[in-house]
Amino acid sequence: MAVYTEVSDEELNGFLAQYDIGNATSCKGIAEGVENSNYLLHTDRGNYILTLYEKRVVREDLPFFLGLMEHLAGKEFPCPTPIKGNDGKALRDLCGKPAAIVTFLDGMWPRRKSPAHCRGLGESAAGMHIAGANFTMSRPNNLSLAGWHKLADATAGRAGEIKVGLGDAIAAELEFLEAGWPGDLPGGIIHADLFPDNVFFNGDNLTGIIDFYFACNDFFAYEIAICINAWCFESDGSFNITKARHMLSAYRAVRPFSQAELDALPLLCRGSALRFMLTRLYDILNHPKGALVKPKDPLEYLTRLRFHQGITGPESYGLD
Amino acid sequence: MAVYTEVSDEELNGFLAQYDIGNATSCKGIAEGVENSNYLLHTDRGNYILTLYEKRVVREDLPFFLGLMEHLAGKEFPCPTPIKGNDGKALRDLCGKPAAIVTFLDGMWPRRKSPAHCRGLGESAAGMHIAGANFTMSRPNNLSLAGWHKLADATAGRAGEIKVGLGDAIAAELEFLEAGWPGDLPGGIIHADLFPDNVFFNGDNLTGIIDFYFACNDFFAYEIAICINAWCFESDGSFNITKARHMLSAYRAVRPFSQAELDALPLLCRGSALRFMLTRLYDILNHPKGALVKPKDPLEYLTRLRFHQGITGPESYGLD
Repeated sequence: MAVYTEVSDEELNGFLAQYDIGNATSCKGIAEGVENSNYLLHTDRGNYILTLYEKRVVREDLPFFLGLMEHLAGKEFPCPTPIKGNDGKALRDLCGKPAAIVTFLDGMWPRRKSPAHCRGLGESAAGMHIAGANFTMSRPNNLSLAGWHKLADATAGRAGEIKVGLGDAIAAELEFLEAGWPGDLPGGIIHADLFPDNVFFNGDNLTGIIDFYFACNDFFAYEIAICINAWCFESDGSFNITKARHMLSAYRAVRPFSQAELDALPLLCRGSALRFMLTRLYDILNHPKGALVKPKDPLEYLTRLRFHQGITGPESYGLD
Repeated sequence: MAVYTEVSDEELNGFLAQYDIGNATSCKGIAEGVENSNYLLHTDRGNYILTLYEKRVVREDLPFFLGLMEHLAGKEFPCPTPIKGNDGKALRDLCGKPAAIVTFLDGMWPRRKSPAHCRGLGESAAGMHIAGANFTMSRPNNLSLAGWHKLADATAGRAGEIKVGLGDAIAAELEFLEAGWPGDLPGGIIHADLFPDNVFFNGDNLTGIIDFYFACNDFFAYEIAICINAWCFESDGSFNITKARHMLSAYRAVRPFSQAELDALPLLCRGSALRFMLTRLYDILNHPKGALVKPKDPLEYLTRLRFHQGITGPESYGLD
C-alpha cells in the first residue's frame, strides 16, 4: 500500500487536457500496489486508473509494458488498456515522473483463494500466453538465474540475520537450479507476477488481470510455477493439491503442456520459490525504517521451496 | 494514508446484502485519512465510501457523528449522507469493527490553497454552523482546555526531545489560555478538523466537506481559528492575510461575528495552534517504528502560535 506522489488538481487538469476522456470529478490514491503510485480517477465520462511510475520501474521498459497491455486488450484479453492522449501517445510525464492512464477494470482480488479462482486463473493465463504470441516487442526476464545470482550475492552476508544458514541454503539451491535449468521449453510473453492481488474476480468469474510491470519473455511453464507458489499454498504453509489440480487442468485445456514442460515443473517451482524468497529477503534487509510499505516475510518461500524439493515428480501437483 | 483492515469479497457481499444499494463491482482502499480504513466502493447503482472505524474513534461517539452527517445532509449541506441498511440502521459491524457506508462526494481536496478556496470554506463553514443549529445530539470537545492539559502532562517529560524548552513553552501558553479563555461566545456544532484534505472542490467551487469524526459542540469562532491555522499559513510558516481576509469576510457575510467573537479571535487562534501542536507532539513521541502513517511535525504549529502571540488585535487577520 503506497502512494508516493501528491498530484495537485492543477497538475491533474493540465495532464487531462492532453486526453479526450472528460474532466476529473474525483481522483483518489489507492492503497494497493507497492511499486507505483496509483489513483482511481473518475471523470464525467468514466473510471480510469492513473499511474505514476516510481523509481523501481525502469523508464525504458514502459513502452514494452504499455504496448503489451494494448496488444493483449486488442485480443480481447481482460487487462487494462492504455489510453492514448491527443498526440497518440500513452506515456507522458506528471509531477516529474512517467505517467499513464489505463482503463478501469471491475472486480476484486480474492483475499481467500478458492479452487474456482485457481481454475479461472489457469484458463486465463493460458489465454494470455496464446494472445501474446504475435506481440512484436520483447524483454528478458531479469529476475531469472542471472538476477537471482545478483540478489544472492547482495544478501549473502546478511541472510543469516533472517534465519541461521539461509545464505548457504540459497547458494546450494542456486547451484542445483543452474545445473538443471531447462534450455528450450515453449515460451513467450509471461506476466511473471500473477499473485492474487493482480487478478480480479466477480464471484468465481475472472474479470481482469492487472500490473504487467514484471512482464517479460520466459517459459510459459515458469508462469505456472509462479502461480502454483502464489495460489496453491495455505497460510500455514501447506500445499493444496485441489487448487493446483484445478489450475493446471484449466490451463492445459486451453494450452496443452508438452512432456518436457511437465517434467520441468518441479524444478521451475523451485526456481520460482527461490525468486520470491530472494526479492523478499533483499527488501527486508534493505527496508528503510518508517517506510510506508511493510516488508513481506521471505521465509514463507523457504517453506514452499522445501515442499518442491521434497516431491517425487510433477504428479505431486495434482496432474491427472 | 492508511488502510488497516482487509475486507474479503465474501465479507463485503454479506455486508452489502443488508443494504439496498446494489452489488459491489469494485472496492478499493483509499490512501487518505489516518484514523480509519476507507474504501471507495463502486456498485452497479453508484459510488459510495465504506468506512471501518479503527481504534482511535470511540464507538459510543459514532451515533453522534453519523447522526450529524444525516442532519446536515438533510439541510442540503454538502457532506456525506450515511446510508441506512434494511434494518433502518447506518452503523453495523464488518470484520469485527464498527462500519458504515456513506454517499460519495465528487471533488478533490486542494493541494495548493488559494484565496478562492478560503472564500468557499468560510462561506460553507458559516452555512454548516447555521444548519447544525437544531441538531438534537451534542458532544463535548475533548480536545479543548481539559484535553490540552492531559496532552501537555503526557508529553511534558519528553517534549524537549523535539525542541529544547518546548515543554516550558507549552506550560506557559496553557496557563495564559486558561486565564483568558472565553466563557460565553456564540457556539454550537463545529467540525473541528476543517483541514484542506477534508474539503473538496471542483475548481474554485466547494463540492463537499468530509470526515466529521472530531465534530463537537464548541464556539463557532474557534472553528474559524482552526481554519486560519489550517489554511492561511504558507509552507514556509508565513501568514497569508489575503487568504484570511477572504475566509473571514465570506464567513461573516453568511453568519456575522459579534464584537466578542472578534475580540476573542487572537486567543482562539493561539488555542487552536496549541491544540494541533500538542496532538502532533503526542503522536510523534508515541509513533511506533515502522508504522504506516508518517507523523506530522509539531513545530509547524509552534511557528503559528508565535505569530498569534505577536499580533496586536483581530484586525491582523485581515478583518475589514
